[in-house]
Amino acid sequence: MRIDVLLSPGDWPAKSGFQGQVAVIDVLRASTSIITALSNGAEAVIPAASPEEAVALRERLPAGRTLLCGERGGLIIPGFDLGNSPAEYSAGRVSGKTLLFASTNGSRMIVQAARGGRPVCVAGFVNADAVSRRLAEGTEDILLACAGRDGAFSLEDATAAGLLAGAIRQLAGSGCSLSDEAAAAALLHRGFADDLEGMAAGSEHGIYLTGLGLGADISACVTRDAFQTVPVLSDGALVAT
Amino acid sequence: MRIDVLLSPGDWPAKSGFQGQVAVIDVLRASTSIITALSNGAEAVIPAASPEEAVALRERLPAGRTLLCGERGGLIIPGFDLGNSPAEYSAGRVSGKTLLFASTNGSRMIVQAARGGRPVCVAGFVNADAVSRRLAEGTEDILLACAGRDGAFSLEDATAAGLLAGAIRQLAGSGCSLSDEAAAAALLHRGFADDLEGMAAGSEHGIYLTGLGLGADISACVTRDAFQTVPVLSDGALVAT
Repeated sequence: MRIDVLLSPGDWPAKSGFQGQVAVIDVLRASTSIITALSNGAEAVIPAASPEEAVALRERLPAGRTLLCGERGGLIIPGFDLGNSPAEYSAGRVSGKTLLFASTNGSRMIVQAARGGRPVCVAGFVNADAVSRRLAEGTEDILLACAGRDGAFSLEDATAAGLLAGAIRQLAGSGCSLSDEAAAAALLHRGFADDLEGMAAGSEHGIYLTGLGLGADISACVTRDAFQTVPVLSDGALVAT
Repeated sequence: MRIDVLLSPGDWPAKSGFQGQVAVIDVLRASTSIITALSNGAEAVIPAASPEEAVALRERLPAGRTLLCGERGGLIIPGFDLGNSPAEYSAGRVSGKTLLFASTNGSRMIVQAARGGRPVCVAGFVNADAVSRRLAEGTEDILLACAGRDGAFSLEDATAAGLLAGAIRQLAGSGCSLSDEAAAAALLHRGFADDLEGMAAGSEHGIYLTGLGLGADISACVTRDAFQTVPVLSDGALVAT
């Protein structure tokens, strides 16, 4: 088994031939919100590549059981039911509902990763232990795909990828190798492990969110293993496993 | 002054609006060979985007004073005068000569970085001190552009970028900020600083070169500050400064 990391969405062309299991990481905040929603009883989360796609998808689903969710520029999309703060995804709001989810980076990366039928799950700090154990059980190669920020690298996603790479390697043992990207990410995580919140708050996107008044989300997004849920894509919808 | 790092060539679209000074890094081995050549008296190194472009350029230059240099798949290109081992670029071979240089990653990145008239220099471990001092004197934003490997990330280039980012920030003082990528690269360098050769030999490209019998190049490529030369692009040719 080989563990690779997509450090930035811009590297997709170089990794497009990847065959194996993909875990999509968007720590601030799509991964965290999706994991929170499914842990709190949402029936499914359907990732959309754009808000327009989410709206179009809703028209094909039964009325009353769907919520439009997501953000543009970090803020709730006008006319949508929920934004992208994990705290919005309480059991009271999402239990039994199907969520149509359009975020700038995370949901697009999920849609992109799934092309060609690759198995895709969603990972963050909040379910790192569950995802690591799940992926270490398999024999397939693994690509930890960082959603990044506006098409480029983000520190918090790479750090989470490093946590996962290190944990999976430890669980899978000597037959598991790391790419250059995975080795770099693992070293990043070792550097930041003692202060994940400081790392995330000091990252470009952390600073941006704080500027929007959304800094309180950061703490939830770096809480290790708050959930044991692994969202897995099945027929275009993420479901809890 | 802001220091950013292009961790992978795939991130160019996200950075294409960059205005400022670019330093191109291809530790294994184009940066190192180019810096070595200019330190050993080569008159100029003209980066070409492809071997074909290098051959076409030669036909427009005076005969007898040019050398065709570069690699494909790590090996000298058939019909070329020199490959991409720094040891080939001795004073005896290159002094007074103009080198047409086509490598898989490095020369292409130089050509790409120079589009739009951006100032471009070439950096590696072998001239890190000289480049850092030069760039810290300026006021422009800095992009440390890793040439990477086949369009993707390489550990040794990111580590060298981290050395430069840390050194420039220290020299430039409090007015200097680091992007997420620069912060990550600086942490990588701190992790590997005590064993640059082990890092480079264990990287994907280091392993590949060793497999080709070119492992002896690695040591030369991670030798800190062997030269004080800063190759600077001027009218399409790199010259020593």
